[in-house]
Amino acid sequence: MTVQPRDPNFETRVRDSFARQRFMATLGASLELVAPGEITIVFAHRAELTQQHGFLHAGVMTSVVDSACGYAALSLMEPGVGVLSVEFKVNMLAPAVGERFVATGRVVRSGRTLTVCSGEVTTERDGATVAVLLMQATMMAVRGREGVAD
Amino acid sequence: MTVQPRDPNFETRVRDSFARQRFMATLGASLELVAPGEITIVFAHRAELTQQHGFLHAGVMTSVVDSACGYAALSLMEPGVGVLSVEFKVNMLAPAVGERFVATGRVVRSGRTLTVCSGEVTTERDGATVAVLLMQATMMAVRGREGVAD
Amino acid sequence: MTVQPRDPNFETRVRDSFARQRFMATLGASLELVAPGEITIVFAHRAELTQQHGFLHAGVMTSVVDSACGYAALSLMEPGVGVLSVEFKVNMLAPAVGERFVATGRVVRSGRTLTVCSGEVTTERDGATVAVLLMQATMMAVRGREGVAD
Amino acid sequence: MTVQPRDPNFETRVRDSFARQRFMATLGASLELVAPGEITIVFAHRAELTQQHGFLHAGVMTSVVDSACGYAALSLMEPGVGVLSVEFKVNMLAPAVGERFVATGRVVRSGRTLTVCSGEVTTERDGATVAVLLMQATMMAVRGREGVAD
Repeated sequence: MTVQPRDPNFETRVRDSFARQRFMATLGASLELVAPGEITIVFAHRAELTQQHGFLHAGVMTSVVDSACGYAALSLMEPGVGVLSVEFKVNMLAPAVGERFVATGRVVRSGRTLTVCSGEVTTERDGATVAVLLMQATMMAVRGREGVAD
Repeated sequence: MTVQPRDPNFETRVRDSFARQRFMATLGASLELVAPGEITIVFAHRAELTQQHGFLHAGVMTSVVDSACGYAALSLMEPGVGVLSVEFKVNMLAPAVGERFVATGRVVRSGRTLTVCSGEVTTERDGATVAVLLMQATMMAVRGREGVAD
Repeated sequence: MTVQPRDPNFETRVRDSFARQRFMATLGASLELVAPGEITIVFAHRAELTQQHGFLHAGVMTSVVDSACGYAALSLMEPGVGVLSVEFKVNMLAPAVGERFVATGRVVRSGRTLTVCSGEVTTERDGATVAVLLMQATMMAVRGREGVAD
Repeated sequence: MTVQPRDPNFETRVRDSFARQRFMATLGASLELVAPGEITIVFAHRAELTQQHGFLHAGVMTSVVDSACGYAALSLMEPGVGVLSVEFKVNMLAPAVGERFVATGRVVRSGRTLTVCSGEVTTERDGATVAVLLMQATMMAVRGREGVAD
């Protein structure tokens, strides 16, 4: 999808908003690529993010890729609009075994109110890229609601 | 649904496994009810769990209710079996404004391999219970895989 | 959920719109209950609706419960608004073995633009009600788009 | 994904099974491409498949792409195994306006029991391909259950 951002300042706007997501800092996640309609966020295995078998909790991966999808949607919205997650669905594709993970969110369809995104979490294993989670998400542009911008 | 646990020791098993989910401690979530096919986990608003508008990140609520659904499924599994999340879908019903949240996971259908669960996150607002998130999830019983028990 | 329809004429409106869904006639589905925020539609096993093993195709059940959820949402919308399915997710709970099926759609949360619904398909087997499909869906109110009313 | 079918006879097996899905004939859908892990099915607008606004019912598109995903999964399964839909989620991307539609199902991850698929429905509009529906689905390999083969 070739897309045109409606806000020329989209990258700063996404980076500033991400910096306010304190949960991303709690997860040790950092924003990497910010392109129109595509975002990547990286994070690493940490003991305090694990479930009972020592893998990353599915919720950790879901949280980061939800943010990636949300910011992919926001990157295409006009200035002054806020973004909220409406709903998402994830499939776990493989156990989250790995050191470093990359979450990618991409806009599949950008509407005035709703944006549909596709997300993925991958890791490197034995020199190959392994997909560990797949997301399909709906994001919403929120206009004129106090406290909900970017 | 009236259900019979296949493991008479189900409550200890669920509580021990939950105690090994280090991510739940990171979120400040604590296990409350453990009944056959039904689990509740409570957690509270904390600044380090927020998204850019100051609400709890959708991923926080999703993580806790994923654990609630997973343990609801595990509570009905025979001894020695492990549980993993196959997939889930959530809808955000209202902004996560509140002090204290309750995540409930319930088994809708328990099969030999797959268990379907329904999950919900609620909070109290002005004396009323408000639903903020709804989940529909599939959990899997894992047998004979090293390192994946309970 | 106790709900107040914004259109006193909601029942006629839902029944008229359902009568225009030619696909429901193709499936032999008929509208039964029309209450504010709750709809039931009944349908029966027919050979021309089956998949390769002779069960009802998952898509048949999904189609009917999608309509039930859509009309549950519409039943609470103000006059002049149209309803469209944004997205839905279904879990198959049991093989669709049975003679007669009941699809129920219920509004979980009704917003100005988006409505979240919960849907279910059940059948009678040996005197008991068996749930065969569970849906979680998002419906949208469409205003001012030509050709999209009710 | 480069994949190796475990059944050299996969194409005949998929085509024979599809021919037994009487619902696909009811929808006027016909199987086109059968490749390892990828299936396309085509179908056309018909008045008896419409919803109240004259668009194809979301359930029609969902039914066809569910079959495409199911057969994409089956194409990689060993002989003697049956396939069933566990769950799926769809997002409507655009109104189903068009004459001819193509549903594609692709395997994203193929496991022994569960297969995750990605599905899409497209149509041609003014010389361009428009995506109208996106699916994320889980299919299951069924072994040793009477009446459930292919």
